[in-house]
Amino acid sequence: MKKEQLVNLVEQMTLKEKVDQLLQLAADFYSEKAEAKTGPMAQLNITQDTVNHAGTTLGISGAKEAIRVQKTYMENNRLHIPTLLMADIIHGFRTIFPIPLGLGSSWDLQAAKQMAEVSAKEAAVSGLHVTFSPMVDLVRDPRWGRVMESTGEDPFLNARFAEAFVKGYQGDDLEHDFMRVAACVKHFAAYGAALAGRDYNTVNMSERQLRDQYLPGYKAALDAGAKLVMTSFNTVDGVPATGNEWLFRDVLRGEFGFDGVVISDWGAVQELIPHGVAKDQKEAARLAIQASVDIEMMTNCYTGYLEELITEGTVPEAMLDEAVLRILELKNDLGLFEHPYRGADEALEAQHVLSDEHRSIARDVARRSIVLLKNEHATLPLRKDQTLALVGPAAQSHDVLGVWSWQGKKEEAVTLAQGVQHYAKQVHTQTEAFDYFAPSKEAIEEAVSLAKEAEVVILALGEEDWMSGEASSQTDIRLPQAQLELFDKVRAVAKTLIVTLYNGRPLDLTAIQSADAIVEAWFPGTEAGNALADILFGVYNPSGRLSMSFPENVGQVPVFYNTDNTGRPYLGDPNEKYVSKYLDASNQPRYPFGYGLSYGEVTYSQTIVHQDTVQLGDTITVEATISNHSDYKRRETVQLYVRDIVGKVVRPVRELKGFTQIDLAPQESQTVRFELTTDQLFYVHSNQEWSTEPGEFHVWIAPNSQEGVKTSFTLV
Amino acid sequence: MKKEQLVNLVEQMTLKEKVDQLLQLAADFYSEKAEAKTGPMAQLNITQDTVNHAGTTLGISGAKEAIRVQKTYMENNRLHIPTLLMADIIHGFRTIFPIPLGLGSSWDLQAAKQMAEVSAKEAAVSGLHVTFSPMVDLVRDPRWGRVMESTGEDPFLNARFAEAFVKGYQGDDLEHDFMRVAACVKHFAAYGAALAGRDYNTVNMSERQLRDQYLPGYKAALDAGAKLVMTSFNTVDGVPATGNEWLFRDVLRGEFGFDGVVISDWGAVQELIPHGVAKDQKEAARLAIQASVDIEMMTNCYTGYLEELITEGTVPEAMLDEAVLRILELKNDLGLFEHPYRGADEALEAQHVLSDEHRSIARDVARRSIVLLKNEHATLPLRKDQTLALVGPAAQSHDVLGVWSWQGKKEEAVTLAQGVQHYAKQVHTQTEAFDYFAPSKEAIEEAVSLAKEAEVVILALGEEDWMSGEASSQTDIRLPQAQLELFDKVRAVAKTLIVTLYNGRPLDLTAIQSADAIVEAWFPGTEAGNALADILFGVYNPSGRLSMSFPENVGQVPVFYNTDNTGRPYLGDPNEKYVSKYLDASNQPRYPFGYGLSYGEVTYSQTIVHQDTVQLGDTITVEATISNHSDYKRRETVQLYVRDIVGKVVRPVRELKGFTQIDLAPQESQTVRFELTTDQLFYVHSNQEWSTEPGEFHVWIAPNSQEGVKTSFTLV
Repeated sequence: MKKEQLVNLVEQMTLKEKVDQLLQLAADFYSEKAEAKTGPMAQLNITQDTVNHAGTTLGISGAKEAIRVQKTYMENNRLHIPTLLMADIIHGFRTIFPIPLGLGSSWDLQAAKQMAEVSAKEAAVSGLHVTFSPMVDLVRDPRWGRVMESTGEDPFLNARFAEAFVKGYQGDDLEHDFMRVAACVKHFAAYGAALAGRDYNTVNMSERQLRDQYLPGYKAALDAGAKLVMTSFNTVDGVPATGNEWLFRDVLRGEFGFDGVVISDWGAVQELIPHGVAKDQKEAARLAIQASVDIEMMTNCYTGYLEELITEGTVPEAMLDEAVLRILELKNDLGLFEHPYRGADEALEAQHVLSDEHRSIARDVARRSIVLLKNEHATLPLRKDQTLALVGPAAQSHDVLGVWSWQGKKEEAVTLAQGVQHYAKQVHTQTEAFDYFAPSKEAIEEAVSLAKEAEVVILALGEEDWMSGEASSQTDIRLPQAQLELFDKVRAVAKTLIVTLYNGRPLDLTAIQSADAIVEAWFPGTEAGNALADILFGVYNPSGRLSMSFPENVGQVPVFYNTDNTGRPYLGDPNEKYVSKYLDASNQPRYPFGYGLSYGEVTYSQTIVHQDTVQLGDTITVEATISNHSDYKRRETVQLYVRDIVGKVVRPVRELKGFTQIDLAPQESQTVRFELTTDQLFYVHSNQEWSTEPGEFHVWIAPNSQEGVKTSFTLV
Repeated sequence: MKKEQLVNLVEQMTLKEKVDQLLQLAADFYSEKAEAKTGPMAQLNITQDTVNHAGTTLGISGAKEAIRVQKTYMENNRLHIPTLLMADIIHGFRTIFPIPLGLGSSWDLQAAKQMAEVSAKEAAVSGLHVTFSPMVDLVRDPRWGRVMESTGEDPFLNARFAEAFVKGYQGDDLEHDFMRVAACVKHFAAYGAALAGRDYNTVNMSERQLRDQYLPGYKAALDAGAKLVMTSFNTVDGVPATGNEWLFRDVLRGEFGFDGVVISDWGAVQELIPHGVAKDQKEAARLAIQASVDIEMMTNCYTGYLEELITEGTVPEAMLDEAVLRILELKNDLGLFEHPYRGADEALEAQHVLSDEHRSIARDVARRSIVLLKNEHATLPLRKDQTLALVGPAAQSHDVLGVWSWQGKKEEAVTLAQGVQHYAKQVHTQTEAFDYFAPSKEAIEEAVSLAKEAEVVILALGEEDWMSGEASSQTDIRLPQAQLELFDKVRAVAKTLIVTLYNGRPLDLTAIQSADAIVEAWFPGTEAGNALADILFGVYNPSGRLSMSFPENVGQVPVFYNTDNTGRPYLGDPNEKYVSKYLDASNQPRYPFGYGLSYGEVTYSQTIVHQDTVQLGDTITVEATISNHSDYKRRETVQLYVRDIVGKVVRPVRELKGFTQIDLAPQESQTVRFELTTDQLFYVHSNQEWSTEPGEFHVWIAPNSQEGVKTSFTLV
């Protein structure tokens, strides 16, 4: 449909129809069962007519149901405008991939794109049009449960993942490629900076910091073409995002030029009332529409009061028309006027959803996301002929998907025991069920007894899925106490002890440091056990690198790599008192950003910069040679860091400016070359402008954020 | 001396003399021992001539020495300008008062003023002119060691204490009242918000939050007439305070109209280099002078480079002249041109320093600062005829002063054992020395054995002084492990167990919750044991109320009373998932701001507001009746809280707007009336302006920040 036709359509709509177009309702309202909607309808004080004209829906799925809903909807809709089916497809639809924090640890943009493509295809054939993904919130506080949904603590890395996800979901021709879905970047803005790591809590930071560190991720997703933006629950400098005109109208639409759809997070328009910036629903509606929020998710402020606000002249009707037009344009961009069922197809659904091909991709992506944290005495990889004991609560657990796995089914997921049995000749695993928090005496005794007999013990520990994710903040980020006690008992008898971890946040791993090897597997998804077994047995040489620091303890939080130097930096002399440090912990995380081990030794040569001095507009060539000294193949994640020694405002001690992954054959060396542009040296100044100044810059090509040999160049 | 004469004096000074006037040197440089200064002089690359003309000194003390230094200095100084003697007199000079966080807990402005008066008198007769106090940094993070030096987490309470301290130090006629010293408010600005509670770490917040919550304390000190302002070590939105022209020239001097002396914190000018905003000392000097920093403490950027910066035209000489004039004006305000020795007097020194009168005041102030946190079954007050055991590391410890007690002597301080023995007929205390971290087996056994025999056990626990204060940040805020183990052993045998605490920060007291009574004594100062015994035996009914929240655990940090509601407030139903909470801890601190117990029961009537609706400019009369239902006299701290239900920006769930202390006789009731002005309803908006809007306000007269029955009024 042409834009003029859409404008014409808006003109034909009644005021009420236009307001209804801004409403998003959940699947219940479109169920065939009458009772599924009458209760909610009464609660929202809306009529069947409003249900028939509500512009978008949330959480309908399955080709058959999607087609039925669309058909009925369009029949009942006066102007036969199609509805838009949205859902949270975060790290896979039915074939579940690693949680986003795991994907972040892959540093593999191709893997991220594959995840999004597979998710899009499964969702599209199941009838969906829009996914509420990617979540690109920068995260620095592991107490916050939703760190599992982010790719981590770095603006640059998050931005690259944001692009990869958007491209994977949307493809190159969203209108005609029905195997794709529209992407909704979230949560605008800075939701990841919740005070004290408590979900939905206040966010406070300066505008400069917001622009410098938090906004680039969203901006990258928009530049990659994301069709929608979701508001965040939090305040941004005292004003809730969902009612924040400066944030949405001035910055997002004005500066960033975003003309797509803005959708509120669940109930967030109405939450302007408890937030304390709106006294009632009418005021909430006014603030949200003024901020240019197009779709109100699940509450009825718009349907209740927008007509009144327009009739009385408080809100110009043009403001509503713009919102409606943006929604219709999105429907049109998805080709729904011509093809209202789009990809929904039961045959394709049967063919693609959880296909062998998808499982195979998920397995590969999962093993790229696993991070080897410790590996003393080359404990790993395992040999197939070793006598193994596989014990602990996660050994036979199907709780490997992580939350935001709406359509994922735990029973379809591969356990670690299944994965290991595939390779190991002799593996003894528990027969007793093993609770994560309160294991039975028998289960513990069995674990210890099996551990005693084995050459190598794999102790599978972790969090249950509900311990991370939305509304799952924790003040204690250690493993559950029962697991720490189990660790001590097993450690006491095990000859060689490997700990594997399924979890959704960086943990305080102090208590398990005496393990010979530690493998962070996150929640790897449907192919969990296979992927982890691939790592343990060296079928895949681990290439994962952390995208979020693991603190020594929760008292260090937030601790992250791209911190400022301070005026009194700690330089390593523990006897120096008046420097920025703790009396009882280091300034460094236990495992830093970018960190992860692989099998075999690798070395990085001195970093070489080809130009000693550069001018604005120049490209700086930086290179180093990476040498694999082992007989293992390995994929190495080569990281480029820069430090601006003197700025108008303080610059971080390191900032990631590039990375690449290279595949090294046994004993192979490769020279990696980065082209750094002077644009990449720009940062946000006190006047909110991006620029930089002449001066010295340090540069590292390094295996992680704490290593590497620095060199420098000067911008003149 | 008249202003014209001072201007004339500046005109007579050479460029070098003017630059030297901006330098502050430590006592060593003026010592009679040559070797005390040659090393430091070489290090700073300065000559004896510069020492003779350095404008101010730090840390000289004692009337005799002060007179000698001043005499020699003026003889050697070409224009015979006197020097200015400064020092850190934070909570007492030789007679040590409670640490400021304890003073904050007194909620007693008269006590704060008395502390400052006594400190000023002892310092003044010892030859000092300026104290680097008050520290009014707002603090919310107990990991930060310097919370001990603040009065707490509330802008209003801090502002009132700031005024009281300044008035106490400076009196009404600083020029002629030689028993006073000039006050230096610090640290401008927001030093208390160090990231992750790590001292000197980055501070980041929005300008709105800075103005709304952090600046009012400093502003109050300035309005009370504080003569100096010290820069903070931290950055303020990316620019170190000491080189932050916006902060000092625009806000402090421009908006706040401050025309007194700005002094850098120790070495802070030079620290602009490691901070990363100056490439060398010359640039550091330029940034600091441009920010209007008048005195450089202990580094030589000004002496090294200001002449060159002026000669080459980078810095106008007028900028230097202004700084010099401000320093000379301060000297003149202290009457030093006419009376260069000011209060320095060996006879007065002998009379006043650590006088009985001062000790008596210190004892009274100390007991007002002690907070009774728990008192099950009216365990306290003790009866003199009970058989007591007094055990634990702090029982006989002289480590009761807290840091920033430069002239305080531990051996002059009263131990708890001494204090208790004064009242108790039968008290058995330890003979074994008891280490805070690694007590001997014998000491523990003795403690347990004494505890077993007693009717009531007083277990004296705490931190050593060095565990809080500058550069003493901790990630673990529990008591040392050995003390927790001791607690468990003593608890197991004690019939009745009272824990007393000496410490410098809010602690996680989870592990000692089974005590029958808990008394937070902070570091009470020279009269520690007497003051604490006064509380334990009911000679003084405890009136202290916390001015900083005690978290449940470090994972909750920061947790404070004047937080925002969020869009998804936790309303008390633990089964409600999608609200702002933790899975494993409450949202509330263990002991909230304003909390503290006294002996006997008190009730607060319903809060009454005399006006249902008010207009801008009106005064709102709020009253409640407070009734003492016991036979104890008590001092009650009556607190007035307000909540702005709907703002243009989110307002805190409660804000302290007034408080008063009333003395209630046994069984007495008193009606307390507050007059709240509509000015007090103003807050900082997104445009940085103070204003308010019509709407509903809740109001409480309450015993602490979590209790009280609310009522409301409407601003129309």
